[in-house]
Amino acid sequence: MERLPGFRDFYPEPLPPTKDELWSMDARNHIFDTWRAVARRYGFREYDGPPLEPLELYTNKSGEEIVGQLFNFLDKGERAVAMRPEMTPTLARMAAAHERAYKKPFKWFSIPQLFRYEKQQKGRKREHFQLNCDILGETDRAADAELIALLIDTLRALGLTRADFVVRLSSRGAWADFFASRCPDATKAYDFFQVVDKLDRTRPEVSTEQLAPLGFKLEEVQAFITSGQPNAELQLILDQLAARGLADFVKVDYGVIRGLAYYTGPVFEAFDIKGEFRAICGGGRYDQLIKQVSGGKVDLPALGFGMGDVVLFELLKSRGLLPQFTAGLAAYVLIEDETLRGDSLRLVQQLREAGLAIEFSLTPAKGDKQFKRALDLNSAHTVRLEKQADGNLLVKLKHMKSREEAALTPEDALKRILAAR
Amino acid sequence: MERLPGFRDFYPEPLPPTKDELWSMDARNHIFDTWRAVARRYGFREYDGPPLEPLELYTNKSGEEIVGQLFNFLDKGERAVAMRPEMTPTLARMAAAHERAYKKPFKWFSIPQLFRYEKQQKGRKREHFQLNCDILGETDRAADAELIALLIDTLRALGLTRADFVVRLSSRGAWADFFASRCPDATKAYDFFQVVDKLDRTRPEVSTEQLAPLGFKLEEVQAFITSGQPNAELQLILDQLAARGLADFVKVDYGVIRGLAYYTGPVFEAFDIKGEFRAICGGGRYDQLIKQVSGGKVDLPALGFGMGDVVLFELLKSRGLLPQFTAGLAAYVLIEDETLRGDSLRLVQQLREAGLAIEFSLTPAKGDKQFKRALDLNSAHTVRLEKQADGNLLVKLKHMKSREEAALTPEDALKRILAAR
Repeated sequence: MERLPGFRDFYPEPLPPTKDELWSMDARNHIFDTWRAVARRYGFREYDGPPLEPLELYTNKSGEEIVGQLFNFLDKGERAVAMRPEMTPTLARMAAAHERAYKKPFKWFSIPQLFRYEKQQKGRKREHFQLNCDILGETDRAADAELIALLIDTLRALGLTRADFVVRLSSRGAWADFFASRCPDATKAYDFFQVVDKLDRTRPEVSTEQLAPLGFKLEEVQAFITSGQPNAELQLILDQLAARGLADFVKVDYGVIRGLAYYTGPVFEAFDIKGEFRAICGGGRYDQLIKQVSGGKVDLPALGFGMGDVVLFELLKSRGLLPQFTAGLAAYVLIEDETLRGDSLRLVQQLREAGLAIEFSLTPAKGDKQFKRALDLNSAHTVRLEKQADGNLLVKLKHMKSREEAALTPEDALKRILAAR
Repeated sequence: MERLPGFRDFYPEPLPPTKDELWSMDARNHIFDTWRAVARRYGFREYDGPPLEPLELYTNKSGEEIVGQLFNFLDKGERAVAMRPEMTPTLARMAAAHERAYKKPFKWFSIPQLFRYEKQQKGRKREHFQLNCDILGETDRAADAELIALLIDTLRALGLTRADFVVRLSSRGAWADFFASRCPDATKAYDFFQVVDKLDRTRPEVSTEQLAPLGFKLEEVQAFITSGQPNAELQLILDQLAARGLADFVKVDYGVIRGLAYYTGPVFEAFDIKGEFRAICGGGRYDQLIKQVSGGKVDLPALGFGMGDVVLFELLKSRGLLPQFTAGLAAYVLIEDETLRGDSLRLVQQLREAGLAIEFSLTPAKGDKQFKRALDLNSAHTVRLEKQADGNLLVKLKHMKSREEAALTPEDALKRILAAR
């Protein structure tokens, strides 16, 4: 029996040598732990919603591109439901329901698994995990600067530097002004943004043809994109990032526009500098979405970003930033004399109760086989009980790197192992 | 827009006062962190599989009870798929695919979210999270003792004691012997187990009627259940738990039989001693399942348990074992002089880069309002920059509990905050 195409199995390291595509659970935990740690440093609080939501939450809200790619179905109660393709609609639903209880602005993060039925292509998955960080209830662009600083520090905490990535900063506001200066019909703005969003992937003749009915020439659009002149809102963000010493990580680039319909203000994407991968992260301001989701009841400005695990995984791997992970054993308890198994079990229990990661052989095994297992598991120590002539038990504690061995009381052995962590 | 019935939203604490049923994300993290920490102490390694699997993985494998309650559908590629109702079939699939690469026995854990379309009842959810711990490749009952010790220590790490819970230990082997001593037709054993599993919830007349065609009287079944005499495999497990000092947490009780079809050896459930809740945890040996899932290719004995988060949540809450959680801020940076905002932003950045959780007001606000926010957020310190006559900046660091304030250089302030953690 095979897993479904586009889905991943996460195995403990070391991963088996195989042609099957396997993912490291240890590396995933390393990424998630870093995501959580940095978000908490920034005062973000974690939330989560259901991976299955009413289909209605996504129709009309997320742009048509997403809706055609849903895992959606009728449940046994005849409800139209969908596995979540993105987190923002769930966040908007949750925030709208209880925003009164949280002092504004509030900063929330989540690490949902998201699902899209995409065409099978190399590197395209049908699920991924995504760090979502959002700030709700603040119109000041200081919030945008705070969010982008978090994005930068998250990537830095994973070992990436300014030699590895850049955040391209743009503005839906600047684009809207540019659009309005040439086309008076604001209802066509979203169509225009969609065309601009796909310029990179479209032949110039086709783009020219798509832009003409909207009143634009391809050259003037391209000139605007490459101008790189920050408007007022972007300048404020750049100033605050500069004050934090993060100016070098950001670049104004109007080529970024973001496909989703709900963005309203500054938008941004993070890319690897070599241009080998798809965007690492994308986000922006969506001041109208919560109003829309709540049927006009709750008017809460908001902004956020999503950072997927798949591209990040590939990037970290290619830069040698994923270490080899092990079980992190503090000690392997050797049982060479089976009459001491009961005492050894008690010792195992004591060491574990002190918070240490301990392994031992569940069944009788030769001493050298047990020692080899301790080596394979990269255990920091081995521990062995020895009965003395007076009937007392001594602990032989061996430090695996130095191979130094000491004979200690059980209490002293515990202290020594704890100190070595 | 409402969330689907039976699904949960997890909010940051403090939770809003509301009639809506909300769950604490902080308490969920507390439980998950404890699950991970204890499993790692026991040398268990984490894995995960897809939340969506081929429907086929569950039909015929898990007993009919589960299959009738699946969230299943046809995906856009016409595949029959199901959201996972339990983790063991996924584990069996993953282990069967790559068991050769892992030294036996191997110990794995996972914290999957699981889905069942259950009838709507108070306290019955359609999703829950479950700690799954499994040992693969070991027939010796020492592995069963190791697994049960892990279960006990997991509950103890959450603050529960022998006054709160007990593990009821039983044996499919003992039941099979009892069955064979009276009924020669082994193919009827599973029907018999199903009747026994439901004795508690069935009227005696009905049970009597169900048992008769299998050749059993209700009284002799009840006598066997209450006998409490460990058979050989249970005695071995009890001895090893006693050696670890955990004997008091376990009781032989043949009333436990476990509904699932795939169990083969010792089985067990953990219950709160007052009997207020459903089982906290259940598990046992399933030596044939991996062979079955792999179509006979891989013969790997195995055992495991699942511990759900919903009952555990309720139990911990009722015992006062869930503390109030906060953002855990190390410092709130007060900006009372807006000309110092740039310098304050740099300080915020420095403190965060040192790993500290730091908050500040994104926009200009009155000093007392900022201080009140620091109090609300339960920040350990406040920090405030002050420009001196010579133009240098001093940090005013206030410890919020003692209200003591010190004037320090930025470097010394950082050291003091780090030391206070």
